[in-house]
Amino acid sequence: MRLSRYFLPILKENPKEAEIVSHRLMLRAGMIRQQSAGIYSWLPLGLKVLSKIGNIVREEQNRAGALELLMPTIQSADLWRESGRYDDYGKEMLRIEDRHEREMLYGPTNEEMVTEIFRSYVRSYRDLPLNLYHIQWKFRDEVRPRFGVMRGREFLMKDAYSFDVDQEAARAAYNRMFVAYLRTYARMGLKAIPMKADSGPIGGDMSHEFIILASTGESQVFCHRDLLEMPIPPEDTDFQSDLSGTVKAWTSFYAATEEKHDEAAFAAIPEDKRVAARGIEVGHIFYFGTKYSEPMGAKVAGPDGVEKPVHMGSYGVGVSRLVAGIIEASHDEAGIVWPDQVAPFNVGIINMKVGDAAVDGACNELYQRLTKSGLDVLLDDVDGRAGGKFATMDLIGLPWQIIVGPKGLAEGKVEVKRRATGERELMTPDAAVAKLIGA
Amino acid sequence: MRLSRYFLPILKENPKEAEIVSHRLMLRAGMIRQQSAGIYSWLPLGLKVLSKIGNIVREEQNRAGALELLMPTIQSADLWRESGRYDDYGKEMLRIEDRHEREMLYGPTNEEMVTEIFRSYVRSYRDLPLNLYHIQWKFRDEVRPRFGVMRGREFLMKDAYSFDVDQEAARAAYNRMFVAYLRTYARMGLKAIPMKADSGPIGGDMSHEFIILASTGESQVFCHRDLLEMPIPPEDTDFQSDLSGTVKAWTSFYAATEEKHDEAAFAAIPEDKRVAARGIEVGHIFYFGTKYSEPMGAKVAGPDGVEKPVHMGSYGVGVSRLVAGIIEASHDEAGIVWPDQVAPFNVGIINMKVGDAAVDGACNELYQRLTKSGLDVLLDDVDGRAGGKFATMDLIGLPWQIIVGPKGLAEGKVEVKRRATGERELMTPDAAVAKLIGA
Repeated sequence: MRLSRYFLPILKENPKEAEIVSHRLMLRAGMIRQQSAGIYSWLPLGLKVLSKIGNIVREEQNRAGALELLMPTIQSADLWRESGRYDDYGKEMLRIEDRHEREMLYGPTNEEMVTEIFRSYVRSYRDLPLNLYHIQWKFRDEVRPRFGVMRGREFLMKDAYSFDVDQEAARAAYNRMFVAYLRTYARMGLKAIPMKADSGPIGGDMSHEFIILASTGESQVFCHRDLLEMPIPPEDTDFQSDLSGTVKAWTSFYAATEEKHDEAAFAAIPEDKRVAARGIEVGHIFYFGTKYSEPMGAKVAGPDGVEKPVHMGSYGVGVSRLVAGIIEASHDEAGIVWPDQVAPFNVGIINMKVGDAAVDGACNELYQRLTKSGLDVLLDDVDGRAGGKFATMDLIGLPWQIIVGPKGLAEGKVEVKRRATGERELMTPDAAVAKLIGA
Repeated sequence: MRLSRYFLPILKENPKEAEIVSHRLMLRAGMIRQQSAGIYSWLPLGLKVLSKIGNIVREEQNRAGALELLMPTIQSADLWRESGRYDDYGKEMLRIEDRHEREMLYGPTNEEMVTEIFRSYVRSYRDLPLNLYHIQWKFRDEVRPRFGVMRGREFLMKDAYSFDVDQEAARAAYNRMFVAYLRTYARMGLKAIPMKADSGPIGGDMSHEFIILASTGESQVFCHRDLLEMPIPPEDTDFQSDLSGTVKAWTSFYAATEEKHDEAAFAAIPEDKRVAARGIEVGHIFYFGTKYSEPMGAKVAGPDGVEKPVHMGSYGVGVSRLVAGIIEASHDEAGIVWPDQVAPFNVGIINMKVGDAAVDGACNELYQRLTKSGLDVLLDDVDGRAGGKFATMDLIGLPWQIIVGPKGLAEGKVEVKRRATGERELMTPDAAVAKLIGA
């Protein structure tokens, strides 16, 4: 993409309404625009990151055997009356009346609807296990939306729902999602720690929040340091196999959010292994048994012909929230530092003298070659001051920069800068191409 | 994908509520499920088609220089008051009150919001031309939603908005979308004819509906037969160049919907060149000048420093409607006949004797080899009657079928069937793989 043809409205001033760094940087980098309280447009740069994150989530859900569908945003109130939640949900639910005065709502979550889909079609244990997920916009009418897309009202979530014949099978489904989540966040360049979470009235050990550590995090978390270095299950993990060993390894170390924190258990950890830090919740997996299948009549016949309510779990990833979460975890004074895997562009080329035939030519050639090799490249071909160009490129945080100026070119060289480290290296354009394609 | 692990709830009976063939086939093939009047879940098979169509639209918008962003579904009523449309829109607009009693609405379209984004950031003619689009769910509270996703209430639309300094530049923007639309529909295996459409109070010639011909179409249309054979602009079309020649070639032939039909002009066409047919609208492009920029104050300074309202156009593609439209245009007695480019899977393999080691082995090997070569393959590995298996595979309309049974295999052969023609051919598994990879 050539910057001259792109829509990248950079803000020079720090927006006053932004209280946290990710909100400030997303506004300044032209990633989002607020349309109403807690409701945002995703401008081109922001949408690219959102899509890349969504695709990683999708690939890992698919790998784990979950099936993607897409439920609508608008739901009927009657469906929520079946589970009893229509009256319970309170003011966070955006309630709507249509032209025929039917009560509708903007879905804040989809347990009821997916249970309705399940019960309409599935009758036998032979059709299980089943895990259905979607990546769809949700609405929660927060009383005081804040922190940008970190706590918006309209937000993008991946929510998966598993259906199993009994609790043992539901645990296997839970373990598949547990492992899929470990892989999902790692692929985004994040360290996400599964932490024991509230399991509600059902009790049991099948409820984990996935928390990324960031000094600006919303809540206090505690864990064993070894969790930070645990190996991530590999790409060729067999999701048909027994994954309880992996889950056991991860859950054998202490890890808890403030709500579930056990001071005594934490004190029992050797002092140099204790991590007390700030964290951001970016996912939650949760077994809830027959909470919805029972009142809604979602049953399957077992091998003995007897019908029983299915055992369900739900598995959420905050896709739009992750964009902010990654920035909280990865930024510096100059702006965002995107992990390679979710960066909106892999490389930014800075043309230091627009209109100079040699510089223009070298920039164009680099742009063509890198683009052809499959990299996503942003070419700053706009006439402007060097300082402003550097500041913009640092602000938007592309992993690599190639700076092309007349002086360097006269010696056959361009400068390659790694955003994360600030490391700079002079090299020939050929060497730059080779380096970035191999990176 | 193995059918044993997929969610494909086929209906054996024709659903009574479905009045048109696409609605009937989408329900029967397990592509959609109605959740409320005019509101559908997209089940896995349906979502795959929806995504493929969306991606073709996206690629062609990007090729034409339009930039993707994503505006939210929920908008503020105040924004619509600025253009005067809040009161005008009537009951098709789903009006919502949030917990703070602010008036909101579920966007039926986005002229106001995109104009607000534009005016917030763009000040100079130097930042033009600009074309911003998104692919987002819309809601129109139809009084009597019907025909499945053809006329749903919650529907997926691509809407693009162009911003230009004057009418001449706006015409160039219009022409780029005109050409992009020709390519978009052709890539889906459709013949879509641009037809003169109502241009509203502005008048002029810059308003076209894109209509696909289908005997079950919703409206009567008329055109010159030569339009059916017009060449489609190639992939390497230079969208920076003057495209008026292409647009002129397409618009020089008679083509009109019933509303704009001119009996005398139609009669002047040689009789064998007259086409009177049924059609389905799948897109609309439209220049509306300063209709929104004027009241909303979206202005740019020209080279002379004088500020003027920008000239705008809008360009819609009914993405979810297209899924039904393609089925209306391409089906037979046995079910859907997907064009290759939008088929949910490229190939279906039918295992005729599940549990037979040779047949299972041959199916698995075909599945692996075709999948590795990049094809999307559905393997029917479920034990069942031959008749039911054939019927399901024909119903869901995958372009190619490979039928693997013990008799054929004993002679080293499988059967390859082309869904569209019914043509069948016996060949070795190697030959089948070669044929489908090359197809």
